[in-house]
Amino acid sequence: MKYYAGIDLGGTFIKCGIVDEKGNILVKDQIPTGKDRPYEEIAADMAALVRRLAESAGIEESDLRAAGIGSPGTVNSKKGVIIYANNLQWKNVPLGGAVAEALGVPVFVTNDANAAALGESFAGAAKGYESSIFVTLGTGVGGGIILDGKLFEGNRSAGAEIGHMVIRAGGEKCTCGRRGCFEAYASATALIRQTKEAMKKNPGSALWKVCPDIEQVNGKTPFDALQTGDKTAERVIKKYVTWLAEGLANLANVFRPNAIVLGGGVCAAGDALLEPLRRKMNRLLYGGTKYAPVPIVIASLGNDAGLVGAAHFAQQSAG
Amino acid sequence: MKYYAGIDLGGTFIKCGIVDEKGNILVKDQIPTGKDRPYEEIAADMAALVRRLAESAGIEESDLRAAGIGSPGTVNSKKGVIIYANNLQWKNVPLGGAVAEALGVPVFVTNDANAAALGESFAGAAKGYESSIFVTLGTGVGGGIILDGKLFEGNRSAGAEIGHMVIRAGGEKCTCGRRGCFEAYASATALIRQTKEAMKKNPGSALWKVCPDIEQVNGKTPFDALQTGDKTAERVIKKYVTWLAEGLANLANVFRPNAIVLGGGVCAAGDALLEPLRRKMNRLLYGGTKYAPVPIVIASLGNDAGLVGAAHFAQQSAG
Repeated sequence: MKYYAGIDLGGTFIKCGIVDEKGNILVKDQIPTGKDRPYEEIAADMAALVRRLAESAGIEESDLRAAGIGSPGTVNSKKGVIIYANNLQWKNVPLGGAVAEALGVPVFVTNDANAAALGESFAGAAKGYESSIFVTLGTGVGGGIILDGKLFEGNRSAGAEIGHMVIRAGGEKCTCGRRGCFEAYASATALIRQTKEAMKKNPGSALWKVCPDIEQVNGKTPFDALQTGDKTAERVIKKYVTWLAEGLANLANVFRPNAIVLGGGVCAAGDALLEPLRRKMNRLLYGGTKYAPVPIVIASLGNDAGLVGAAHFAQQSAG
Repeated sequence: MKYYAGIDLGGTFIKCGIVDEKGNILVKDQIPTGKDRPYEEIAADMAALVRRLAESAGIEESDLRAAGIGSPGTVNSKKGVIIYANNLQWKNVPLGGAVAEALGVPVFVTNDANAAALGESFAGAAKGYESSIFVTLGTGVGGGIILDGKLFEGNRSAGAEIGHMVIRAGGEKCTCGRRGCFEAYASATALIRQTKEAMKKNPGSALWKVCPDIEQVNGKTPFDALQTGDKTAERVIKKYVTWLAEGLANLANVFRPNAIVLGGGVCAAGDALLEPLRRKMNRLLYGGTKYAPVPIVIASLGNDAGLVGAAHFAQQSAG
């Protein structure tokens, strides 16, 4: 049997799991990142964590074939170098090489959203679909593109920036500097902004009952208010779903994947989000839905997607 | 030596060439399509044309390894079936099989824009670039996506509909029924519409001198007027270039290709189009232009792109 270590590097924690060839996690654990330390120390901690977990799982040293790391930021996966990671304050960090040296097995690095996409494709909600696009609705809109079961990253891994595809040129300002990006309309942050705007205009809305302190609005707020039959919440969600459908339909028309996987906190809304979303996106699919439909499914691996995907990335890269 | 037939099927003509392994055309010719005939007759004509050309080029029968066809419409390239082609009034036509039977070599079919994209990638303006996106600015906005030297078509070849990615949701009506598609802003048709609108609003513009009959406006008109220093033409082009840049930047951010190839009549404008376009698109590239730049180049094979690409598609598919 062959095993792979999957590492999910975050600004706060390093999560790690030992994963088998089928994507099952044997053991997992996490340690603090301590992100202000030199990267060499972080790499050494990663290697030690992998060794400890492999031992606790009773894996023979020779059966651990490789390790994969999902890292925030822009990652040159061919070289194992983190080009730029804002939340770690890293620039051109050769993390893959450092961990490989400490661990004694090949190490492969990709972006964290890519790793999650690969995890969902290999062992999660998109299992069985040849090609899929993973879209997370969080602070921003991130994602990963899986074609024929493999990550598609673009030249120097700089592609798959699906949040930074405009859907309304000249529209809302995006954090990237462009106006009208998908992210500026469809992230959880955007939904919160849209909800707050609606609350200010509608002092009688049940949104205020659900969340009396406007600063506490989150992605759940409008869906909670919707359940009380609130018209303002209904309008907010309808509009948000329209933007989300436009972006997903763009991805569907350009990639025509076998499935789209949605992740991120907003998905907790379940059918209240999914049903109108499917309906709207299907109306925007070029050529209709009969010939090559694009189902929308909800991510199923949760916080484990990144480490399962990182392990599978190592499996694909090392063989 | 191995040779391949490349066939470019159009509503008016069937163009065909015998192409070597390097993408050089040995001989080429065209015959009328006669599109209202049964497809079996058209297939027989194609096979006869290929045989005649192969003979005139002095190719041994055994050296002609396969034929490729670029067809309008939606094509299931795995099956060689034209699913739907509006201008031929075809539905589910098994063209590949029919030509293969008549010709006695394997025949592979893809969409005509895809074939042109592959031609430009293999032997034209994108030669040497691993991945490229071909964008034609014509009646619509068509295109093809080349990843690692191969066509990317999406599930059942239904992807790569780059003209039907919205860049301004809720905006201009597109022929596909959606509002705000790239095609509705960046096709030659859109440029003509934008030019006419500007002429109606500006009776003193030199656009009227360049083209006194507004019904005769074409994609060249605004560029001709620009040369006389006309401010209205300048504004029309500036706006058009802005839309075009938004769509190309979307493709660049999502695919991060090694190059974008522009084709279609509008490109005749040359630097008057390209210079501002490059400048604007570069400003919209996620992460800037230093790490993974996306050069924009002009298609170089002209009308031969389709048949060179169809032949190369056969070469890749048959080996």
